Amino acid sequence: MNFLKLSDRDFGETASTDKPKRSSEFSERKLAPADFSGIYSNDLLPASGGEEMTRGFLQELVGILLGFICKSNQRSSKVLDFHHPHQLKEGLEGFSLDLPVQPETLEQLLVDCRDTLKYGVSTGHPRFFNQLSSGLDVIGVAGEWLTSTANTNMFTYEVSPVFLLIEEALLKKMRSIVGWADDEGDGLFCPGGTISNLYSILLARYHFYPEVKTRGMGALPRLAMFTSEHSHYSIKKSAAVLGIGTENVVVVKCDERGKIIPAALETSIATAKEKGLVPFYVNATAGTTVYGAFDPLNAIADICDTHTLWMHVDAAWGGGLLMSDRHRMKLEGIERACSVTWNPHKMMGVPLQCSAILVKKRGLLQECNKLGAQYLFQTDKPYDVSYDTGDKSIQCGRHVDVFKLWLMWKAKGSDGFGSQVNKCLENAEYLYDQLQKRTEFELVFKNKPEHSNVCFWYIPPSLRSLPPGPDRDRRLHQVAPRIKGRMMEKGSVLIGYQPLGTKVNFFRCVFSNPATQQEDIDFLLDEICQLGADL
Amino acid sequence: MNFLKLSDRDFGETASTDKPKRSSEFSERKLAPADFSGIYSNDLLPASGGEEMTRGFLQELVGILLGFICKSNQRSSKVLDFHHPHQLKEGLEGFSLDLPVQPETLEQLLVDCRDTLKYGVSTGHPRFFNQLSSGLDVIGVAGEWLTSTANTNMFTYEVSPVFLLIEEALLKKMRSIVGWADDEGDGLFCPGGTISNLYSILLARYHFYPEVKTRGMGALPRLAMFTSEHSHYSIKKSAAVLGIGTENVVVVKCDERGKIIPAALETSIATAKEKGLVPFYVNATAGTTVYGAFDPLNAIADICDTHTLWMHVDAAWGGGLLMSDRHRMKLEGIERACSVTWNPHKMMGVPLQCSAILVKKRGLLQECNKLGAQYLFQTDKPYDVSYDTGDKSIQCGRHVDVFKLWLMWKAKGSDGFGSQVNKCLENAEYLYDQLQKRTEFELVFKNKPEHSNVCFWYIPPSLRSLPPGPDRDRRLHQVAPRIKGRMMEKGSVLIGYQPLGTKVNFFRCVFSNPATQQEDIDFLLDEICQLGADL
Repeated sequence: MNFLKLSDRDFGETASTDKPKRSSEFSERKLAPADFSGIYSNDLLPASGGEEMTRGFLQELVGILLGFICKSNQRSSKVLDFHHPHQLKEGLEGFSLDLPVQPETLEQLLVDCRDTLKYGVSTGHPRFFNQLSSGLDVIGVAGEWLTSTANTNMFTYEVSPVFLLIEEALLKKMRSIVGWADDEGDGLFCPGGTISNLYSILLARYHFYPEVKTRGMGALPRLAMFTSEHSHYSIKKSAAVLGIGTENVVVVKCDERGKIIPAALETSIATAKEKGLVPFYVNATAGTTVYGAFDPLNAIADICDTHTLWMHVDAAWGGGLLMSDRHRMKLEGIERACSVTWNPHKMMGVPLQCSAILVKKRGLLQECNKLGAQYLFQTDKPYDVSYDTGDKSIQCGRHVDVFKLWLMWKAKGSDGFGSQVNKCLENAEYLYDQLQKRTEFELVFKNKPEHSNVCFWYIPPSLRSLPPGPDRDRRLHQVAPRIKGRMMEKGSVLIGYQPLGTKVNFFRCVFSNPATQQEDIDFLLDEICQLGADL
Repeated sequence: MNFLKLSDRDFGETASTDKPKRSSEFSERKLAPADFSGIYSNDLLPASGGEEMTRGFLQELVGILLGFICKSNQRSSKVLDFHHPHQLKEGLEGFSLDLPVQPETLEQLLVDCRDTLKYGVSTGHPRFFNQLSSGLDVIGVAGEWLTSTANTNMFTYEVSPVFLLIEEALLKKMRSIVGWADDEGDGLFCPGGTISNLYSILLARYHFYPEVKTRGMGALPRLAMFTSEHSHYSIKKSAAVLGIGTENVVVVKCDERGKIIPAALETSIATAKEKGLVPFYVNATAGTTVYGAFDPLNAIADICDTHTLWMHVDAAWGGGLLMSDRHRMKLEGIERACSVTWNPHKMMGVPLQCSAILVKKRGLLQECNKLGAQYLFQTDKPYDVSYDTGDKSIQCGRHVDVFKLWLMWKAKGSDGFGSQVNKCLENAEYLYDQLQKRTEFELVFKNKPEHSNVCFWYIPPSLRSLPPGPDRDRRLHQVAPRIKGRMMEKGSVLIGYQPLGTKVNFFRCVFSNPATQQEDIDFLLDEICQLGADL
């Protein structure tokens, strides 16, 4: 037990009083317990008379959460307080992962909550550049708090009337932004972009071969699907899950910028046909994971038309740009897609998870996935059962991922999302400009960023005079991981790195957090230089 | 806009002052804004100086959420305030689903939050019997609030150090409760029991035919899988998704109680083999959806041993009974399973979603699903990358579903979960006893409940003298839907119904909410009698 840290609201490193400190607003609160050290969860609701205790406990928790939110927004605070797995498992400073037989006090639970946040990562910190999803939108968080308090399921209207209507409204809006007609389309919110992409392949297969549902892949010819070498691994993963097989996913070559080469796609399709495979599906990426590249959607759509293939656009990362008048032309042709993946939890800053699969052909989701379980989807209910959308899903229970997005949309308006996206892309341009100016860095490709991804190498002093070649590459490959290691230990900033094709480890910076300012970008570059000066 | 309702904390039907009312504890708070009608989301963090406004807004929201939690626990409040889809879409009392171009005020957002809860369903109400998941555990809700504030992803240790270790600790504990040795097993938390069941089939297929990952189902013989007629529809749905095909799912006969008949399973396997199919997988259910039946696990395990089949136990609903010394013998033989689905969000009362797939063969999840994406799962990271468990998953990003369960486990201890399960099963026995005593009701099967499901017909006065036969059945079939419709309109209680096989619509009552008392069960029966008296 480490009570001392409980209400150390600024999440600083030390606390030295004997009793837990209280935040000013909660110490003034009436009726709240003075401390929770003799109180247990069975003193809370539904215990008779548990109202005040419940109120007091949740307000104390909210104090801790507010402390975390405020700290995440302070540049002087750490992005992470790194510990190795064995350190955390050994019970660092009294933090224990063990699951007890007997209950622990609410005081201990509050300590555990605080410790969980302390040893975690502030993905909302303005200097967290590690993932496509970042930021900590207060309205989005509020939406999630409500969602978890409502604690219901998306399968039927009778238990989720409002959330199902919210899902309908959001999907309709998103489809219209994609550019589909009002009477077209369907969709679902899914647990992540990979599952959304999986849906697209599942639907394409069913569209061409509806017998697959009952008879399985054994009744089908050997299918082939196409995706670029820069596309997300979820396409291959889905092919494995769906029984198509990863070797039937043809990986199409990209140009230097990471965009699929239409002629290469044509050739790949022809080659597959010659081998006796039956092409049925092309995935185009709008915003690749590493380079942020946009595939040429119209050229791909033309090819899909010619060969009668399903065109999917994986806009998990790039979809957010549709909200910006300045950038949406980068997705020109998306309206020709048969299906679209779009993750508002990435570029739109919605808390995890929030991913949509949009489908142009109405009715297909239902036909492909319905089984009509009678205990859930009775047709003799006293309302319009077309709102029982659960049978469209491959899941049964489905988490409510829509409310936070809806609430954020109300809070920002479409225009607000547009400005947010513009700002992230301005940050990317600023970083790109700085990298061009500074001799310690080298760009992975010399084009202005299309999305908010910027890829670059840091060249430490010892490598600057080396000629290009295997020796320099071998040494450069070790630079990013070593800097990242030091960065994690220090906790000042966080950025990802990876190799790609023949290119050795390089940093990928991405912007999706509207809290990030130019000063944070300057800080990032200075920090990399400082951490790597001796390499 | 309907400001009037904003802070009507008791969620009553009327409010009549000009200004929003404030709850007592928040009106005493210093520095909070007096009202939010001129304030927008861009006044909150990360806006400079946005700390106090953020604090004030979230505390106001928490006031609304606390009001909902308290109301959900009041028996005098409605379980639901039913409106048809068209009513809610028409903008009832100012509630608008529309997504605006321009931002709305924080005041309006708070009104929207309140309305969303008002028009929703209180799944935590002690008289909500409609779903296997019910209740509103305050600690679980607290866990979800923290999870959404931490806003991170389960794929790598670098962004989820604590949550990945928590997942490891929970999975280890759950496997030991299932009865597997310490050095056995693996697992993952999944977005719902259907996906957990899908994993079991995916893993079984890969275990016997690892070439399926690259070559697809075309390279495999025609597989057959077996599940009971009372099992969950997710088994068939997964077969469709995975490319196995629903007609290759052999549905095995059950006894009157809903348990699979082992001899029928033997026969089904033999018949499938004769037809040239290759059996590979048997799903046994521990706690069926409607009857709450437990398949005879040891007998099924014997058959699986004989034929070298993968034995999966779908204990999504029944797994919670493993926590109870009194009831865990109902799952005897589960330790012989190759994989187990167990949803703590059902019988253990954890907020949605929380579902685990447990796998006996260590390493299989990783082998089956890994693709080694270099941008995420670098092997040259500065820590033990075996904790980067994301490549075991068919998802990429994965929601943090573990923290709430971990926090609840700390709060209750294993013993507390055991008592909670015992209490729910005592409620089921009480209902069963009452139904036997009361002549207005008829039990669907005359065995003491094994789980908390109790299935029964209400026989309205006009049917009591009718002889059994098609005419009585036809009329009885309409009784439950009509009562359910009236129940929804009135909002006093909620219970599910369905037909099953040759049995016409009957009510299924289930208990998973520890808030439910015997008085609620009496109320349910009286209410059904009252609502159906004229039928």
